[in-house]
Amino acid sequence: MSPGTDPNLAAVVETTQGAYRVVVGQNILTMLPDEFSTAGLSGRAFLIADEALFPVAVRTVQETLEAAGIVTHVMTLPSGEQAKTLETMSHIYDWLASLRGERGDTLISLGGGVTGDMVGFAAATWLRGVAFIQIPTTLAAMVDASLGGKTAINLKTGKNLVGAFHQPRLVLSDLDLLKTLPERELRSGWAEAIKHGLILDHKLLEDMEANSDSLIALEGDTTAEIIRRSVAIKAKVVSADEFERGDSRILLNYGHTIGHAIEASTAYGTFLHGEAVAIGMGVAGRISVELGLISEELLERQEATLKRFGLPTRAPGLDTDELIERTKSDKKSRGGAVQWVLLDGPGHATIRRDVPELVVRTTVDGLVGV
Amino acid sequence: MSPGTDPNLAAVVETTQGAYRVVVGQNILTMLPDEFSTAGLSGRAFLIADEALFPVAVRTVQETLEAAGIVTHVMTLPSGEQAKTLETMSHIYDWLASLRGERGDTLISLGGGVTGDMVGFAAATWLRGVAFIQIPTTLAAMVDASLGGKTAINLKTGKNLVGAFHQPRLVLSDLDLLKTLPERELRSGWAEAIKHGLILDHKLLEDMEANSDSLIALEGDTTAEIIRRSVAIKAKVVSADEFERGDSRILLNYGHTIGHAIEASTAYGTFLHGEAVAIGMGVAGRISVELGLISEELLERQEATLKRFGLPTRAPGLDTDELIERTKSDKKSRGGAVQWVLLDGPGHATIRRDVPELVVRTTVDGLVGV
Repeated sequence: MSPGTDPNLAAVVETTQGAYRVVVGQNILTMLPDEFSTAGLSGRAFLIADEALFPVAVRTVQETLEAAGIVTHVMTLPSGEQAKTLETMSHIYDWLASLRGERGDTLISLGGGVTGDMVGFAAATWLRGVAFIQIPTTLAAMVDASLGGKTAINLKTGKNLVGAFHQPRLVLSDLDLLKTLPERELRSGWAEAIKHGLILDHKLLEDMEANSDSLIALEGDTTAEIIRRSVAIKAKVVSADEFERGDSRILLNYGHTIGHAIEASTAYGTFLHGEAVAIGMGVAGRISVELGLISEELLERQEATLKRFGLPTRAPGLDTDELIERTKSDKKSRGGAVQWVLLDGPGHATIRRDVPELVVRTTVDGLVGV
Repeated sequence: MSPGTDPNLAAVVETTQGAYRVVVGQNILTMLPDEFSTAGLSGRAFLIADEALFPVAVRTVQETLEAAGIVTHVMTLPSGEQAKTLETMSHIYDWLASLRGERGDTLISLGGGVTGDMVGFAAATWLRGVAFIQIPTTLAAMVDASLGGKTAINLKTGKNLVGAFHQPRLVLSDLDLLKTLPERELRSGWAEAIKHGLILDHKLLEDMEANSDSLIALEGDTTAEIIRRSVAIKAKVVSADEFERGDSRILLNYGHTIGHAIEASTAYGTFLHGEAVAIGMGVAGRISVELGLISEELLERQEATLKRFGLPTRAPGLDTDELIERTKSDKKSRGGAVQWVLLDGPGHATIRRDVPELVVRTTVDGLVGV
């Protein structure tokens, strides 16, 4: 089916492991068995879900699959970034071993970004790789984490230090799953969509500004359309740079250099990912102004949009030295230099490896440090 | 350099992750820095070695790299299959984190198949994948395990259940490293080379039979040539079927269905891998005769060759039921059916998914069971 004939199809992502469909719409969980076949899958389904989705969503997915004759086993995982460890992975492996999961079987993630990272890593490494479906249940996962094949777990020393690129065979985002999401989770999710507009699509940014009331209220058609457009942007970037070897995929890291450092220094317990990224965009935007890349006006517009969606842009009280130290151990460091993604216009970003530490320090001090 | 101009070049393996050179020869560790550059590598080296190779071989490799200006960190791993666990992997990750390993750095495995599996898996999963060099130090690793990008760790419930396909950027096999290998390890190593002859290259089998004295004595030129030819066979198979999706790569599993079951049922403590595979070839060869695929004479020839190289072909006293049960949980099962690789001529093999359990049971009973 081409995007033209299937109104729910947001993108087809091309990868070296094959192409996969990203479907976004209202009340589309019922399409799962058909999409399962369309993706070329057969065998059993191993549904691994965030325990917060038990029993309602878990049972709905299981019953939908079983009704179509797909044998489905279910396991739940503890919620939250703290559970994204080798130890949890070990439990998943033992469960798969006890049920004799085979190479022709499929792992399905039902949950947010954390669940998707773990189930994706399990799929990447079980029997050296089995098929994998993403059913994201948070806005952040729908517009960002479920796309691009990044999977990971955390070490005590850093987030996502261990992982693999393992592409899903299907991403199915049912907006109805967002209705039970806590409001703070929902707000956090808009951060990555706003980011896509800021770095790559001025029109998307404008439309999000113009429709903010409808989006915040999750009004069906408008929300689905904006999510599909945000998905299409990320899909295009990750198709062009599957393994993050070039610079284009690194652009998606806007706001993440300080964002990751903030999450790590607060032990992933204070800020949601989108909130940390919003604060990180505040820092990166300010650095962009300091280096003369963008006007003060564009930065103010970024701040206003983030605030409109209920997102913070600063967080006084953190330790500047610790944050700066943590940016240096970021995965995307090259030869010890921090790679900063900065705005250089509305809907346009650039990568800089020569940002003076004094500029970083002053900015971090002003917005998040003490 | 083409194979014609470089006498040590055994093969160039083509993969979706790029091509890599397999170099086999005497006293060639000195070529490591040049090969490092030829493979397009820069950055630091993280040398992870079997502790049995400390200090002599470890220091030689480290000094060779450092003399060429490549910063080299060293870690050792406990010897043996029992250490191939998630826990050991966790130590490797912590070590890499403490030294801030970056995406542009390279992990080097110095050891046998177990070390290569672990270091390869670490390279596959550290920062979602970094470069990896194999320096195999056992015959089994040179002719088999170092090629093809399979990496893995064991679970309590089974061997190699967790892993990834991650291709090395270079395989460098220095025959001088074999000189300190225990005789039993060396004998075990010939099993896979004999297997390559049996399933795919009748001429290699004949030449190994004719030159067995020279090979057992590790006489330089003859041994290097036979290893290069064995490497070239495996390289051709894994180039054609990188992810073991087709049948051709499964042919390499000849002797492994029962071999893996024997290793697991004896807790990896009684037989070396090559010994278990030799016994497994005894079983698979006998099944081939029972199904009328090969003559009794070819089976006798297989047995004679394995014995000539000091390898067992039977192992009475094991539990038949347990072995058969274990074959069913093999990674290569499809829809619950065991896939048997059987000989159907000298230098030729076939895959059968319909071997009657009675034939398996009778054969296993006769050769290894009680």
